[in-house]
Amino acid sequence: MSTEPARPEARAPRGFVDRRARDLTAERRILAAVSAVYERYGFEPLDTGAFEYADALGKFLPDADRPNEGVFALQDDDEQWMALRYDLTAPLARFAAQNWETLPKPFRRYAYGPVWRNEKPGPGRFREFWQCDADTVGSARPEADAEIIAMAAEGLAAAGLPDGSAVLKINNRKLIDGLFDAQGVGDLRQRLTALRAIDKFDRLGWPGVRELLGPGRLDESGDFTKGAELPTEAIAAIQSFLAIEAAPDLSRLEVVEALATLKLGAKGEEALVELQQIAAALAGMGVAETVARIDTTVVRGLEYYTGAVFEAELLLQTKDEKGQAVRFGSIGGGGRYDDLVARFTGQQAPATGFSFGVSRLASALRAAGRDPGAQTRGPVVVIAFDQTRMSDYYAVATELRAAGVAAEVYLGTSGMKAQMKYADRRLAPAAIIIGEDELAAGTVTVKDLDLGRALSAGVTDNAAWREQRPGQATIPRGELVATIRKILDAQP
Amino acid sequence: MSTEPARPEARAPRGFVDRRARDLTAERRILAAVSAVYERYGFEPLDTGAFEYADALGKFLPDADRPNEGVFALQDDDEQWMALRYDLTAPLARFAAQNWETLPKPFRRYAYGPVWRNEKPGPGRFREFWQCDADTVGSARPEADAEIIAMAAEGLAAAGLPDGSAVLKINNRKLIDGLFDAQGVGDLRQRLTALRAIDKFDRLGWPGVRELLGPGRLDESGDFTKGAELPTEAIAAIQSFLAIEAAPDLSRLEVVEALATLKLGAKGEEALVELQQIAAALAGMGVAETVARIDTTVVRGLEYYTGAVFEAELLLQTKDEKGQAVRFGSIGGGGRYDDLVARFTGQQAPATGFSFGVSRLASALRAAGRDPGAQTRGPVVVIAFDQTRMSDYYAVATELRAAGVAAEVYLGTSGMKAQMKYADRRLAPAAIIIGEDELAAGTVTVKDLDLGRALSAGVTDNAAWREQRPGQATIPRGELVATIRKILDAQP
Repeated sequence: MSTEPARPEARAPRGFVDRRARDLTAERRILAAVSAVYERYGFEPLDTGAFEYADALGKFLPDADRPNEGVFALQDDDEQWMALRYDLTAPLARFAAQNWETLPKPFRRYAYGPVWRNEKPGPGRFREFWQCDADTVGSARPEADAEIIAMAAEGLAAAGLPDGSAVLKINNRKLIDGLFDAQGVGDLRQRLTALRAIDKFDRLGWPGVRELLGPGRLDESGDFTKGAELPTEAIAAIQSFLAIEAAPDLSRLEVVEALATLKLGAKGEEALVELQQIAAALAGMGVAETVARIDTTVVRGLEYYTGAVFEAELLLQTKDEKGQAVRFGSIGGGGRYDDLVARFTGQQAPATGFSFGVSRLASALRAAGRDPGAQTRGPVVVIAFDQTRMSDYYAVATELRAAGVAAEVYLGTSGMKAQMKYADRRLAPAAIIIGEDELAAGTVTVKDLDLGRALSAGVTDNAAWREQRPGQATIPRGELVATIRKILDAQP
Repeated sequence: MSTEPARPEARAPRGFVDRRARDLTAERRILAAVSAVYERYGFEPLDTGAFEYADALGKFLPDADRPNEGVFALQDDDEQWMALRYDLTAPLARFAAQNWETLPKPFRRYAYGPVWRNEKPGPGRFREFWQCDADTVGSARPEADAEIIAMAAEGLAAAGLPDGSAVLKINNRKLIDGLFDAQGVGDLRQRLTALRAIDKFDRLGWPGVRELLGPGRLDESGDFTKGAELPTEAIAAIQSFLAIEAAPDLSRLEVVEALATLKLGAKGEEALVELQQIAAALAGMGVAETVARIDTTVVRGLEYYTGAVFEAELLLQTKDEKGQAVRFGSIGGGGRYDDLVARFTGQQAPATGFSFGVSRLASALRAAGRDPGAQTRGPVVVIAFDQTRMSDYYAVATELRAAGVAAEVYLGTSGMKAQMKYADRRLAPAAIIIGEDELAAGTVTVKDLDLGRALSAGVTDNAAWREQRPGQATIPRGELVATIRKILDAQP
């Protein structure tokens, strides 16, 4: 039994994860590629602090009994409640309102960073995760939406999504509002239930949606979901509306023309003019029809958006935990919302934006076979063979670094075997051994660890690749950098 | 009087700042450059969550009455106290202890991100700021210290500090401990007071330090600071010890030789062996004598470090608020500390590291005339001249972006004059005007806004530069990209 004071247990708080090289490298590459695209579109970077005053966060204002409901909140020493941001939109609203007079308007900004949600953590559900947002504040023009759509598509491609693997789906909330108006569906509860039903189109198809628009639906588990109980004519109108999704060969302008034949009321007319202008601007920007499509089934949230909505969807099939083929689905979205700054200033400032989860996009890239962290390799390890020759080893490591090659000298006190194991664990492409003989002869011995790993992983079919590689060779010191580069450039 | 509900005031919490393009660009450039260097040295990136359990943070364990003392703490719904990290070392300790069995050892990692201190904010004192740390855990070898020193120096240079503007000062805490031992100074209070006195060498010089080592010192404001009351011989020994700083022409090995002539006890002998090995490894890595020097006056904190300590200092003079010339001083530091993992596991894991404040380094770069955010330029602005021609404007913006040039179409509804003002506010290098005539003739009109700004800022001496620039010109559409590039590449 120990009589020492109790030691704390080393563990991260629930719902928080440590990210190591592979994940971090992937996410940093994504953010660098996306940032470059966003800046080319004239969006400036912004970083606000982690905390906002709770009243600035709006609906998440903590109540004194349960101050942490949904957010991480605490009371400052002047009694004001502060909370960690739960998204990047609320801080933008506060920043835009605070600086409205001096900002160039419209104001385009992008931002990325962690957001915090005080929710029950679970598998794949974290209490801290990174988002990346771009928004234009202060322009009601449909071209502002088009710009966001084009930029989002270009950003996803720049991050590494292969051509044709993702699509930006565009809709306008005023279309369905106008349809409801035209059909005399005025009850708000009915409208929300119907929107929720339409939101399930992807999963249930039209037959399931129809049940949910009517009396209700009994699912496979025996649960009954009460429906919107719309009149038959309204259901038929919605069917015609959603059927436009089923014609993916139509161009964006053709979809607008098809929609123009439906009864969509005054709001729907407005929406069609906006969609037409979006389509024209997308054409001006050369955005391919396959990259951004108008899709009437996109709903995205129920009360937030006021006009155009967009959803980025990965089209690839992936496998779920049970090995079943599933669609990967949404990797980001956004739309137009017009109440951003008004909460603070009373002044309307129409805004539009797009947001994606950074690790979600990293997962999508992995699913698409483009793991942005896959290239993560360890440094070349210089073996500490003779303790009195450390500065010679450091000179070798320095030479490699100067050539842009990551390298390190082993810094522990273990023997040769443990050092080789260490190098392997570091995913070192090569180990360098410099003993008495090498020092006397002006040579170095290079051991190709990539080759060793590939062989033990069963890569035996690429004979040409293997034959070019000696595995271990003693070479003149002057050929060191070239030899290492050859190993780094090789692909099994 | 309004009858609307009260609107929240738009303001950031006290001590938190919004960072915009210029500052963010500067800090991102620093972090990208430093990360590349650190990875070449074989340090892997790590990102831990914002929160740690309070017991893992050690001395900052909140007491129930004042849970926010020094840190931002809150109680999770399972009653455990969590706090936002106040540095990047405590999370590393927790992570290393938690994963010790599976980590490659020694474990080299770097990290950057925000840290939070719940302190009274003031001018230049924030409650959230970014740090960048690199540490090696699990190696007691002096070469591990040398590697950190060489890497820190290379990182600062890669971030943009000009040659010779900064120096890494190296010391070893065991030198002065050994000197105290040899002089029979055993009292801990006396030792701490003496260390605090030595820490003021830069500011007070030897005469001031001598008073503080003896009976005490009366400063200019009339305040008396009680001294360490050391015996005369001990003060003389410290004088000889500190005098070695006064000989900057000595090489690192010569300093070690000079120190070897002093009475520094057993601990001092240990320190000298370590410094000798550090010097040998630095020589192996080709680190110039002017870049990293042994300096006996460096103290760095009082109780934390156990061996080698380092301090990065900017040598440039800058002006303080009163216009007085002052030394910029420390831009980062670190050293060896051996109690990192033991708090959790009971197992010793000797560690060494270097840390700098990211915005502090950005300030240092500005002071050195190398503002890493200075190149921040706005996008080219395409004027929205005719509302029916928006897709033509978007085609022009797209062409520029495809050529890697940031560009945007004006998205507001204001007239020509306001649009030009907007472009200027965005720091746009140029505005592009496409009217009826241009569309008919296949031309574009380019207005050089860089030139306009330079002229209005009084740049009149570079006649050649001005003469090459037409200010405003109508050119064939095919020459657009080349014309814009010429403006971007020009420097007044």
